[in-house]
Amino acid sequence: MMIIMKVNATPQQVEGVIASVKEAGLNVHLSQGVEATIIGAIGETHNIPLERFESLDGVDLVQRITQPYKLASRQFHPENTILNIDGFTVGGDEIAVMAGPCAVESRSQIIETAIAVKEAGASALRGGVFKPRTSPYAFQGLGEEGLELLAEAREETGLPIVVEIMSQVQLDVMVKYVDVFQVGARNMQNFNLLRAIGETRTPVLLKRGLSASIEELLMSAEYILAGGNNRVMLCERGIRTFETSTRNTTDINAIPVLKNLTHLPVILDPSHSTGHANYVAAVARAGIAAGADGLIVEVHPDPAKAVSDGKQSLKPEAFAEMVKQVGQIAQVMGRGLAVSSAYQPAKQGWA
Amino acid sequence: MMIIMKVNATPQQVEGVIASVKEAGLNVHLSQGVEATIIGAIGETHNIPLERFESLDGVDLVQRITQPYKLASRQFHPENTILNIDGFTVGGDEIAVMAGPCAVESRSQIIETAIAVKEAGASALRGGVFKPRTSPYAFQGLGEEGLELLAEAREETGLPIVVEIMSQVQLDVMVKYVDVFQVGARNMQNFNLLRAIGETRTPVLLKRGLSASIEELLMSAEYILAGGNNRVMLCERGIRTFETSTRNTTDINAIPVLKNLTHLPVILDPSHSTGHANYVAAVARAGIAAGADGLIVEVHPDPAKAVSDGKQSLKPEAFAEMVKQVGQIAQVMGRGLAVSSAYQPAKQGWA
Amino acid sequence: MMIIMKVNATPQQVEGVIASVKEAGLNVHLSQGVEATIIGAIGETHNIPLERFESLDGVDLVQRITQPYKLASRQFHPENTILNIDGFTVGGDEIAVMAGPCAVESRSQIIETAIAVKEAGASALRGGVFKPRTSPYAFQGLGEEGLELLAEAREETGLPIVVEIMSQVQLDVMVKYVDVFQVGARNMQNFNLLRAIGETRTPVLLKRGLSASIEELLMSAEYILAGGNNRVMLCERGIRTFETSTRNTTDINAIPVLKNLTHLPVILDPSHSTGHANYVAAVARAGIAAGADGLIVEVHPDPAKAVSDGKQSLKPEAFAEMVKQVGQIAQVMGRGLAVSSAYQPAKQGWA
Amino acid sequence: MMIIMKVNATPQQVEGVIASVKEAGLNVHLSQGVEATIIGAIGETHNIPLERFESLDGVDLVQRITQPYKLASRQFHPENTILNIDGFTVGGDEIAVMAGPCAVESRSQIIETAIAVKEAGASALRGGVFKPRTSPYAFQGLGEEGLELLAEAREETGLPIVVEIMSQVQLDVMVKYVDVFQVGARNMQNFNLLRAIGETRTPVLLKRGLSASIEELLMSAEYILAGGNNRVMLCERGIRTFETSTRNTTDINAIPVLKNLTHLPVILDPSHSTGHANYVAAVARAGIAAGADGLIVEVHPDPAKAVSDGKQSLKPEAFAEMVKQVGQIAQVMGRGLAVSSAYQPAKQGWA
Repeated sequence: MMIIMKVNATPQQVEGVIASVKEAGLNVHLSQGVEATIIGAIGETHNIPLERFESLDGVDLVQRITQPYKLASRQFHPENTILNIDGFTVGGDEIAVMAGPCAVESRSQIIETAIAVKEAGASALRGGVFKPRTSPYAFQGLGEEGLELLAEAREETGLPIVVEIMSQVQLDVMVKYVDVFQVGARNMQNFNLLRAIGETRTPVLLKRGLSASIEELLMSAEYILAGGNNRVMLCERGIRTFETSTRNTTDINAIPVLKNLTHLPVILDPSHSTGHANYVAAVARAGIAAGADGLIVEVHPDPAKAVSDGKQSLKPEAFAEMVKQVGQIAQVMGRGLAVSSAYQPAKQGWA
Repeated sequence: MMIIMKVNATPQQVEGVIASVKEAGLNVHLSQGVEATIIGAIGETHNIPLERFESLDGVDLVQRITQPYKLASRQFHPENTILNIDGFTVGGDEIAVMAGPCAVESRSQIIETAIAVKEAGASALRGGVFKPRTSPYAFQGLGEEGLELLAEAREETGLPIVVEIMSQVQLDVMVKYVDVFQVGARNMQNFNLLRAIGETRTPVLLKRGLSASIEELLMSAEYILAGGNNRVMLCERGIRTFETSTRNTTDINAIPVLKNLTHLPVILDPSHSTGHANYVAAVARAGIAAGADGLIVEVHPDPAKAVSDGKQSLKPEAFAEMVKQVGQIAQVMGRGLAVSSAYQPAKQGWA
Repeated sequence: MMIIMKVNATPQQVEGVIASVKEAGLNVHLSQGVEATIIGAIGETHNIPLERFESLDGVDLVQRITQPYKLASRQFHPENTILNIDGFTVGGDEIAVMAGPCAVESRSQIIETAIAVKEAGASALRGGVFKPRTSPYAFQGLGEEGLELLAEAREETGLPIVVEIMSQVQLDVMVKYVDVFQVGARNMQNFNLLRAIGETRTPVLLKRGLSASIEELLMSAEYILAGGNNRVMLCERGIRTFETSTRNTTDINAIPVLKNLTHLPVILDPSHSTGHANYVAAVARAGIAAGADGLIVEVHPDPAKAVSDGKQSLKPEAFAEMVKQVGQIAQVMGRGLAVSSAYQPAKQGWA
Repeated sequence: MMIIMKVNATPQQVEGVIASVKEAGLNVHLSQGVEATIIGAIGETHNIPLERFESLDGVDLVQRITQPYKLASRQFHPENTILNIDGFTVGGDEIAVMAGPCAVESRSQIIETAIAVKEAGASALRGGVFKPRTSPYAFQGLGEEGLELLAEAREETGLPIVVEIMSQVQLDVMVKYVDVFQVGARNMQNFNLLRAIGETRTPVLLKRGLSASIEELLMSAEYILAGGNNRVMLCERGIRTFETSTRNTTDINAIPVLKNLTHLPVILDPSHSTGHANYVAAVARAGIAAGADGLIVEVHPDPAKAVSDGKQSLKPEAFAEMVKQVGQIAQVMGRGLAVSSAYQPAKQGWA
């Protein structure tokens, strides 16, 4: 960390900063230039907030040299992390496709969808049972009943299930059912939830917040990793910008940027990042071409009847077509769809 | 709610939408224009998501006529809501100034600050004990010990205390101590937390999310109101934009827009909305001139030593000067600082 | 266009709006619903600003049904426009790759680059001679001398040249040299320039502004089309958002959205949309996978010595590798690189 | 300027950067720290783009210590610049209020408005004759005829006139009529126009671009100042964000930030920054309370009939009320409205 003093900083102010750096357990490297005095603060700086020094008298600005996250950083873990999730892998050569409805609505809906997405080549089934809804008057999900239905769909198809968790009070019930926790965009900085999940060993799909920077996403991953749970996937799902022709703006740059900064797998959610079924396949292809390790996609047997997100849900046939296209792009990228697992017999131990 | 059909929508599609509107418990008003068929959906539409109709075949777009929030809306509650909070009021002629450190750090720090802000004219003391920090390695707050210290500062000064709550699991302990719950920007859409707070009768300061629209802020307020807790203040605290010369961008427009849309009191947080102590007073004055009902401001006896947010914290003298300026602006606005309560004897019933 | 009256609008106000609609040369379709009166304004509405009706007494909101652009719209021109540019095409099955330095710096630099990008498979040579620079103290381009050098590079390689125009006063000199005008992001709403270009018959690459909506980009294209110049390509080059890890945010959604809304070819500029040479290939692949018709890429023989944009410029070898990858993606998309023309003999007629 | 080398930069790379710094005419101060080597580049760095060093091998990041603008900077010009504009001043104790219609529409409209705004206390008359319109089909202004009408209104009222210039080709005709050039948001980075205006001695109101950073606004001012025209006012007019309840987001922070960074006067345009007549007065008050030196406000005798921007235009009575309120805020700020000039006899020399 480098602390750049103001041009007219006094020797007393320089001394004050040096004392403060030492107090933080760091070593000092002083450089008195012609234009500015620079104080290097050396040591374990990733756990020291910049602000600790920014408000000291005479300080102009503070600049990190090393990243503020460590466990998530590729600097300290150069090889890709490859997660094993009930038969398929994420982060290696296989492209994972997770698919299913926004919300579990009924037994027939979820079973029908599970069978359809498995046939189309999905590696996992997604479905929400606790729904974060902008309006208190909107459908809030089936709760534990929904988890039962998802477990049934899993038994039927062999697909592991990915389910959003909204609060640490849901943890005890969810951990019994769920193969992958999804942390939604609105909870990316729900630090209590992140800590709680960090204490489990269930894989996590951590979605980027609507206006979260890439660095903040990595810091939130760091919360989970710091708890000892290192099975974290990061998910770009679109950010909020001024453009209104789509629900969000897919930050496609985030894919190569994340692959550069971190060893964790990177997933794209083209359903939320566009908000329109018409645009999902194009953006899904783009994501894989940009280097994403997988996709999470909303599929509904009858989008017009969906209680939520119908506008952005693919019908099963459209999803099957998308998977085919994505598979071709994956091949160009020297990868392949993680389809095999989708056809293995129902996994054991869940009955 | 108006559902505008595509130019080439078929009669079957129009029938389908009509059936769907009726199924939602709404009445239909059909208008077949030259360019477009419009289906009016009439009744209690505020609790029906637009998306319910958006994904139906043949639909071009769906437009609300009435707002999606009801309890928060000025349409149904034209007069200002005036909250009584332990001796002072918010939302009427009095301008409330809540002030204190970002985090409670020690007994001496919080007591000293409480006395200083009271002398300067503050109506309430703020201080965090559970801190939402971007980094898992940063100071996370003193927890219940901090609440004890805040209670002590309250007894000393008579100032009610405003404290951030991050999770519904903190509710039981916090409700025993706290006069006003603060819901932070990162939790504005933590719907479980909002619901839980809606079941208490403790006043709430609800902060706007970093990238939340004004409508979403009102929808989050609706969650709390729908639970029966109608003592909600809304807080503009800056939004995230491309501009980097300040920490956030103060959306000063939000003040008159909110005052127009809702009867709830509107507070400005110039500390977070600017991120620099130098700019706090100017933006505080602007907020009151724009019609805000109060301010929440970070004050620290020694910002350079603050464990968090030192850069944006005012020293007590600077805060006193700010209060003076704000008081003069308040007078032009036909209002006055809620100073009286700050000098009343320590309130009873808290021992 | 539909004009929705306020719930409590008076009959006089409704009459006033009706009169105003008729005055604008439009027909009226009146629908008096239970909740709201809606006035349909029917006719050639694309050239009538919404604001004409928005400020009338009693009006709640005005909603377009048809798009505000007409010549650019796919509604009135369903097939793709395929432009012929000196031997290659854009908008059909061929993927055009335009490449070259940010600025023409010297004879050797531009000739060397032209040969390298041609060999790598580029279809056109880009190079700036009038440079829009944030700082008045930065290099502003070689001017007409640069045009001479570009013409020489064209003769040498047979590649048509794409050059940015910044002002209508440059038109007379540029029209003599240039095969494709580039209109930069900062000039997307320089309406005088758009009009002037509309009067030429030179093809145009129109870049999206830093914070321009997709609709505004189409409206700017409409300016050029309305002048009679229908050889317009649209270019996504990244938008400005809060994310700072890349120079801009590539709005990959814009590719399928534009392909849906307009018949004009859509180009992606992954150099400006990322700002980092490291990320250019990934985003270029994504663009073609999302359906873009071409790319415009910065290439420099020695980026470290480039007078501008060195950070985002590819070395010729990296560019050649990118073209190879893009070609493979194009194949999956049922398309191919427009390589053929790059090998044809120098074009005639340029003295 | 500090160039921070990568942790693993080689001695050769350090040498390369040093050579490059010297080549740029700067002196070198080398600091070899434990974590990083830092190369200070000392001298006239404001006219050297960062990118010159950013793309050199081994460079991690480049950080300015001094600002990239010099003439606009308060560092080199600590006192406020006070502009004299035909009888009133801007930047000192007087608050300037410029007001008038978006566009000059007719003789009666502009004369009527001029008289009304003068009576209400305006110091100058604004009115557009060349209009930047998103749609090529919208009214584009009266051109020189409009300038004649403005001159007539000036003679009638004694108010100097503020008129937008869109292109350097309009300069010759405009310079004969206009007291203050307005450069619109869409032209803030039309560098050819800025240079041309820099060669005149007419005062300029330079508006911030829709997505321009504060630093970019100052760099655009630098273009004009570098030409020798030092009569520049900066104007905050709202930036583009995700919030849609107002036309733009007033960046109120920009007022104190600009007053801190530059000696130039700072004006607020609450009409464009809100887009709604209802919110103009509140935001105007806020601007003055935040320290702005003046306002530019749209006023129209009959907003419902305005050919453009009717929605955000104040009626004369509402404007008069706004001026009164603003005057009271100005007094609290120790300032006063620049009303005197508005009542002086018509200025001479314009016949």
